[in-house]
Amino acid sequence: MAMNIKRIGVLTSGGDSPGMNAAIRAVVRTCAFHNVSCIGIYRGYQGMIEGDFKEMGARSVNNIINKGGTILKSARSKDFMTKEGREQAYNNLRNSNIDALVVIGGNGSFTGGLVFNQEYNFPVIGIPGTIDNDIYGTSFTLGYDTALNTVVEVIDKIRDTASSHNRLFFVEVMGRDAGHIALNAGIGAGAEEILIPEEDMGLDRLLDSLRKSKASGKSSSIVVIAEGDKIGKNVFELKDYVDENMPEYDVRVSILGHMQRGGTPSCFDRVLASRLGVKAVETLLEGKSNYMVGLLKDEILLTPLEHAVKGKSQIDKKLIRVSDIVSI
Amino acid sequence: MAMNIKRIGVLTSGGDSPGMNAAIRAVVRTCAFHNVSCIGIYRGYQGMIEGDFKEMGARSVNNIINKGGTILKSARSKDFMTKEGREQAYNNLRNSNIDALVVIGGNGSFTGGLVFNQEYNFPVIGIPGTIDNDIYGTSFTLGYDTALNTVVEVIDKIRDTASSHNRLFFVEVMGRDAGHIALNAGIGAGAEEILIPEEDMGLDRLLDSLRKSKASGKSSSIVVIAEGDKIGKNVFELKDYVDENMPEYDVRVSILGHMQRGGTPSCFDRVLASRLGVKAVETLLEGKSNYMVGLLKDEILLTPLEHAVKGKSQIDKKLIRVSDIVSI
Amino acid sequence: MAMNIKRIGVLTSGGDSPGMNAAIRAVVRTCAFHNVSCIGIYRGYQGMIEGDFKEMGARSVNNIINKGGTILKSARSKDFMTKEGREQAYNNLRNSNIDALVVIGGNGSFTGGLVFNQEYNFPVIGIPGTIDNDIYGTSFTLGYDTALNTVVEVIDKIRDTASSHNRLFFVEVMGRDAGHIALNAGIGAGAEEILIPEEDMGLDRLLDSLRKSKASGKSSSIVVIAEGDKIGKNVFELKDYVDENMPEYDVRVSILGHMQRGGTPSCFDRVLASRLGVKAVETLLEGKSNYMVGLLKDEILLTPLEHAVKGKSQIDKKLIRVSDIVSI
Amino acid sequence: MAMNIKRIGVLTSGGDSPGMNAAIRAVVRTCAFHNVSCIGIYRGYQGMIEGDFKEMGARSVNNIINKGGTILKSARSKDFMTKEGREQAYNNLRNSNIDALVVIGGNGSFTGGLVFNQEYNFPVIGIPGTIDNDIYGTSFTLGYDTALNTVVEVIDKIRDTASSHNRLFFVEVMGRDAGHIALNAGIGAGAEEILIPEEDMGLDRLLDSLRKSKASGKSSSIVVIAEGDKIGKNVFELKDYVDENMPEYDVRVSILGHMQRGGTPSCFDRVLASRLGVKAVETLLEGKSNYMVGLLKDEILLTPLEHAVKGKSQIDKKLIRVSDIVSI
Repeated sequence: MAMNIKRIGVLTSGGDSPGMNAAIRAVVRTCAFHNVSCIGIYRGYQGMIEGDFKEMGARSVNNIINKGGTILKSARSKDFMTKEGREQAYNNLRNSNIDALVVIGGNGSFTGGLVFNQEYNFPVIGIPGTIDNDIYGTSFTLGYDTALNTVVEVIDKIRDTASSHNRLFFVEVMGRDAGHIALNAGIGAGAEEILIPEEDMGLDRLLDSLRKSKASGKSSSIVVIAEGDKIGKNVFELKDYVDENMPEYDVRVSILGHMQRGGTPSCFDRVLASRLGVKAVETLLEGKSNYMVGLLKDEILLTPLEHAVKGKSQIDKKLIRVSDIVSI
Repeated sequence: MAMNIKRIGVLTSGGDSPGMNAAIRAVVRTCAFHNVSCIGIYRGYQGMIEGDFKEMGARSVNNIINKGGTILKSARSKDFMTKEGREQAYNNLRNSNIDALVVIGGNGSFTGGLVFNQEYNFPVIGIPGTIDNDIYGTSFTLGYDTALNTVVEVIDKIRDTASSHNRLFFVEVMGRDAGHIALNAGIGAGAEEILIPEEDMGLDRLLDSLRKSKASGKSSSIVVIAEGDKIGKNVFELKDYVDENMPEYDVRVSILGHMQRGGTPSCFDRVLASRLGVKAVETLLEGKSNYMVGLLKDEILLTPLEHAVKGKSQIDKKLIRVSDIVSI
Repeated sequence: MAMNIKRIGVLTSGGDSPGMNAAIRAVVRTCAFHNVSCIGIYRGYQGMIEGDFKEMGARSVNNIINKGGTILKSARSKDFMTKEGREQAYNNLRNSNIDALVVIGGNGSFTGGLVFNQEYNFPVIGIPGTIDNDIYGTSFTLGYDTALNTVVEVIDKIRDTASSHNRLFFVEVMGRDAGHIALNAGIGAGAEEILIPEEDMGLDRLLDSLRKSKASGKSSSIVVIAEGDKIGKNVFELKDYVDENMPEYDVRVSILGHMQRGGTPSCFDRVLASRLGVKAVETLLEGKSNYMVGLLKDEILLTPLEHAVKGKSQIDKKLIRVSDIVSI
Repeated sequence: MAMNIKRIGVLTSGGDSPGMNAAIRAVVRTCAFHNVSCIGIYRGYQGMIEGDFKEMGARSVNNIINKGGTILKSARSKDFMTKEGREQAYNNLRNSNIDALVVIGGNGSFTGGLVFNQEYNFPVIGIPGTIDNDIYGTSFTLGYDTALNTVVEVIDKIRDTASSHNRLFFVEVMGRDAGHIALNAGIGAGAEEILIPEEDMGLDRLLDSLRKSKASGKSSSIVVIAEGDKIGKNVFELKDYVDENMPEYDVRVSILGHMQRGGTPSCFDRVLASRLGVKAVETLLEGKSNYMVGLLKDEILLTPLEHAVKGKSQIDKKLIRVSDIVSI
């Protein structure tokens, strides 16, 4: 019943991503717009268990739309995986008269929300926030576009020095089990080769490709590698392997790491966060629950949280061909 | 007949936009991939008339994917609007054995291509390149995403100083007759109000909104105005009007201007350019003509050039409501 | 007497500049380091008159070193120009047991501090914070280096589009009566000509220079103009003048405006702010007053506030010659 | 004899750094200004041995002032360490009528130039180009300021995610045997602790400092480590050590690597490059040799190459104290 919702709690959970603050702002202000109270829950589910709550008015989210990270902070909570933890969390919500939850995070966070809903019939809506873009039900997760820009900006810098020295660089990027970041940032950075978990190109083909690249007259090469890649060697072993087999190359390694999670969100991520935040609150106010809001085919749509959690966001295989062509 | 195409010409025309170089690179390399010759035509249709051509191999587009502007340069051509001009252009293409054209540009450029095709039955494919996002048949034009990031980054800086001084800023952005940039960058920058050509909010409602914003406790305000806005006053007149009617505000004006057309393209624009460039060439090689390639609902699709030219890309009206809510 | 200082007030005044927050942080933490209390005074001298004070501990300035603007806000105060206003301010300081002041700002702010000191014998140390770099006694004012980077980044973008279209751009930059920003950012941006208040090149020489530039084969031109330039025409009149006298050019104007005052401070400005903030507080604790801290010949040094206020920071005339040579 | 110099060769050698292209541009154009021919020598001393030369006119360096890397490419040359190699190089210079050399690089490059000068009495002037700022005779090397900005921008991003998760990050930066980058970027990034080769703080003091930081209420910590640091453990061993001794911290490591060498140069580096390039050529034209041009106490000055090579640029020890205070 929509009528019942007078106070909404919002939390961020799991790995943080750029745009989370913009989403918090949108949730808080949509509550204000509809005269619903909004409670910020700190440190994700752990803060829910510890009752780390704070009322948030429209002015409390001034000047955060362009800030990376999350003002509500994030954490992984082992306690929430226990029945006792969730019970404590539920009691805290009840005692604070919170009627519904907006959970901003990734797959693990949604799974937690789903279990909580099933046990306590508590209304939950998810907003997909992760740089990995690995969530079913949305073409873009919050922070993914920003992370792509961060990666190409860094590889642009590496390219400067690579092409001044005719070097080969292996650049490892994030993405967990998915190759979205590697594939898209690789194309954007003009990488000569891209290694992703979805396709095991094999060491032989990699050497072939590098040889072809050299033969074609390229003075430097960038190979982008997804952290979840399954070529069977980590990035340092890969370097050793190429060092051994292609001594003509001066090979270097760069692991981009956590910088990919931070930074000022791109305009795309800020607008997406605003749209998703509005939709999340209004979906709760319509009396619905257990959905994730997402952007699919240019529209903000709902996907059952259960599907989001079970499904898998596929990379666009056509992009592999695009990469092969434009890196010729 | 696909069989006939042995050499493809590529040009950029109209206002330049970030991503044009990435598209040129993709066109050149897709030609190389398919063993088709590629000719760069300098300064748009004017260079076509003057025979300003240059063969482009795969290596000629090294290290341009991240460069703003267009290495082929752009120009507006009055001569191409005459029958004589187009005849000269056709003769030049024939003499250089160019069989088909890829035109990267906006509406005016496509109209030119269409007329040329009708007169000489010359195969033409268009790639939408403009920051204004005002082209029917694609959800994103090349350069639009980059321009949005440029605008929000600048307004972030203006916000720093605005909030240090409790000021009101009118920021004018590009977009010609369309409000895409203003609306999206306005939401992304957290603007208090957004004035776009598609909606005449009226001066009274603007004052109301500013008063409400002040009353709500906001310490500074940003109003984003599309250059094509139809409120009946230019941005300096608007300032005077508000100065007169709201003396409590210290009003400043900033016209962002041409910086919006430049800059390193975002990852999104680079990937989009790569996909569109591949598709443009392969569409010609399939024997098709008179299409624009575009991104619609997450897919690269073809739209007849005629529709692209006659149609109009609409803003998403739901975004106006999102803006109203999140700027509360 | 150094022994007497138990509580220091800090304020920002005049136009804000990037690095002010880093300076506030350094002042607050140096106080904490020496076990001296620190009071933030909001909105400059106006807040001093209105008693808008807040105690600041070391943790209150977390995560502001990289933020543009000033968390203490700034304002221009007419009241402080009256004897009554200053008396009120003095009484507020006394009532709050504030023993000394750190004033972060420009010339006007220092003049106010000097008058206040003379009337009430109140210890004052100034930190030069302005993007204009027009203060005697320091080679670099806080925010100047960041503003230079902002300007060259924007002109880089304008250059992209200028060189795609063979255009001439007049770009107006800030600097009040001084040409520091124009001269240095002009060289940094590779400007063909730079107009500064310190040198009236005259309209004839400007035209000559532009003609020479065109003749030398340059495809585009950027002319950087200081806002205080004295060529006798504003930037729009200049455009008209060149339009008339050099119709071969397509001339555009861009006024960069307030974005130059905002943005994340450069590393240089953050380190400078940290050094100046430490020195300002420790100078007060040594019992000294009426000095400005500054960076001269790579050393942090003191300059009597009176000299800072009366003197004028000169541009390095040799840079004009450097510009003439490298823009050949 | 100044009269003799009709043609100057310019090369970049050693690790590349942002601003090298701006320096090449200044050298080329200063030659053009003085009607002296300029020859670009590719790939440093190796290209000198192989005769990889190209005449460079004023227009050949258009639009490179803002590009990272070096258009002349760089390389390390083993052949130049042999007498035969240098003889070949000398013969190539003579055959091409090159009368003098401008060498842009670091210590190793200058040593090579010095030996070459001693053997063949060939005029050489050095321009200090390295991000490490480890060269005696200049307060700033080319690329150092840009590298500092790159590092603080990346650590700003890491801070976003660190403070969202209450984490401790060890961030390793470049600098070879010198702590300039670590110390300055550490202060600029607000690092809690900075480890540099010039000061072995010891593991105990590091733990102490981290404990104090935690106790003071800081939610996250950044420790910046110079690659040449001598604490006796590499950055991964340090992480293990802290993991073991301070289990309350969630420790992560980030090695910034080669991105620090690339990127668009800052305005400071562009202006410095322009000034040094002009001075280098004009010093040769005055008949002088064996000097390095540098920026000392705000002036462009000459230092004998021999001193530059033997000396060592010291860090400013006062900055260590500044860091201790502002990170309280």
